[in-house]
Amino acid sequence: MLTVALYQGPESAGVPANLASIGAAAARAAAAGAQILITPEMSATGYNIGSLIAQLAEPTDGSIFQAVADVARRNGIAVVYGFPESNGDRLPYNSIQVVDGDGKSVTTYRKTHLFGSDRTYFTPGDRWIEQFELDGVRCGLLICYDVEFPENVRAHADSGTELLIVPTGLMDPYGHVATHMVPTRAYESQLFIAYVNRVGTEGELTYCGLSCAIAPDGTELARAGRGEELLVVDIDPGQLAKSRAENTHLDDRRRDLYRSIR
Amino acid sequence: MLTVALYQGPESAGVPANLASIGAAAARAAAAGAQILITPEMSATGYNIGSLIAQLAEPTDGSIFQAVADVARRNGIAVVYGFPESNGDRLPYNSIQVVDGDGKSVTTYRKTHLFGSDRTYFTPGDRWIEQFELDGVRCGLLICYDVEFPENVRAHADSGTELLIVPTGLMDPYGHVATHMVPTRAYESQLFIAYVNRVGTEGELTYCGLSCAIAPDGTELARAGRGEELLVVDIDPGQLAKSRAENTHLDDRRRDLYRSIR
Repeated sequence: MLTVALYQGPESAGVPANLASIGAAAARAAAAGAQILITPEMSATGYNIGSLIAQLAEPTDGSIFQAVADVARRNGIAVVYGFPESNGDRLPYNSIQVVDGDGKSVTTYRKTHLFGSDRTYFTPGDRWIEQFELDGVRCGLLICYDVEFPENVRAHADSGTELLIVPTGLMDPYGHVATHMVPTRAYESQLFIAYVNRVGTEGELTYCGLSCAIAPDGTELARAGRGEELLVVDIDPGQLAKSRAENTHLDDRRRDLYRSIR
Repeated sequence: MLTVALYQGPESAGVPANLASIGAAAARAAAAGAQILITPEMSATGYNIGSLIAQLAEPTDGSIFQAVADVARRNGIAVVYGFPESNGDRLPYNSIQVVDGDGKSVTTYRKTHLFGSDRTYFTPGDRWIEQFELDGVRCGLLICYDVEFPENVRAHADSGTELLIVPTGLMDPYGHVATHMVPTRAYESQLFIAYVNRVGTEGELTYCGLSCAIAPDGTELARAGRGEELLVVDIDPGQLAKSRAENTHLDDRRRDLYRSIR
């Protein structure tokens, strides 16, 4: 059994304040028994912050990482956080990094499917399937718009992902992605999804919250409102096996047909 | 502009009564200005009828076809109906046939993705993408469980389908397929979907209705309850172009990545 905390927050307030909020959420999550805290897309810096993206970009062992590693170590909890990852002279990557409870880097994922305005500020990633193991559960990583493509979730299921972790920055009027599409993704590809959104406003964007943890049978384990919130859920790998036995979508694919027009 | 009627019915009552109900729906649909009437999976015969499936199976020019062609001609409206299609000594296909307003067969589609109990009674189809043109709108065909596979809807979008017609026999407790997955399919692959379900009970199955017409931006053009109902909606190809310009999912796919692990 893996206990997962989804931190829907903070409202963007500059790096030091954001890191302090992530630290407070980590303490609450650890106290609730969670082994991992998931925070939204670009949680450390803010997302719709224009040229600040490039200014705040750092390598995977930069000062933001050091601060998050300290939070993780102090609370004995793994943390997933979002940040702009520097990329030489080119635009940074829209990245998330997983830090374990000892403060060590586990893996980094760079958003592969850039959404609209993303393209002004970021370089798309070229490594598709990033995974890591936590307490016997195989976890996979996507960011925001990535999860709108069924191909990405299928590939995770086929690669063994049991819990798909999706930090996001979903804004109005796209709430149906959180309420309709994410449960559909979990059901059609038979895995758990933790979808963790931003809150508040940044410039012309209003984030819609609605973070959720979805079981492989499509049911909601937890659903946030639109404000700052911490959700804590238990992920039971036994529930995955049971759901896959009942909902045989992965086995029922007709790959013979799919290959015919590719 | 194409006007489409979705007939959520009839409750299974034997072939003559079913055909009479389809005839009455066709008259109402034509009076409402519809150019096509869509009826559910196995609308002519019933779906959960055990060995009657094989007994009622017929070729595409059989007596059920003749009766539906007469309905179509009499009302000057195209009709999509479901029936077991005979298949020599093997189990029949779970088929739908499109009949035009002159009573001529346009095309037939055989369900390719068989659901659970389907496999006891049917042979899966081997022709994937079936399409036809109606008043300048390119229509595609799937049946029930087929639409639960994003691959099928993607392939229709890539093949030019603008309106995806999906007769279905969706039962409790799978209502989330109608309310969550079908709108997700329309949005992620940017096309119209007409999803037309059965009603009532047959043996241990209770159909959940909830038929719907969904626009490419994911919004509901119409949504039925759980009882017999006729929905009439206008399909505007201009709305498709507008939605695809705003929601660029089809263009934003990373086929370079998808090919990497296939």
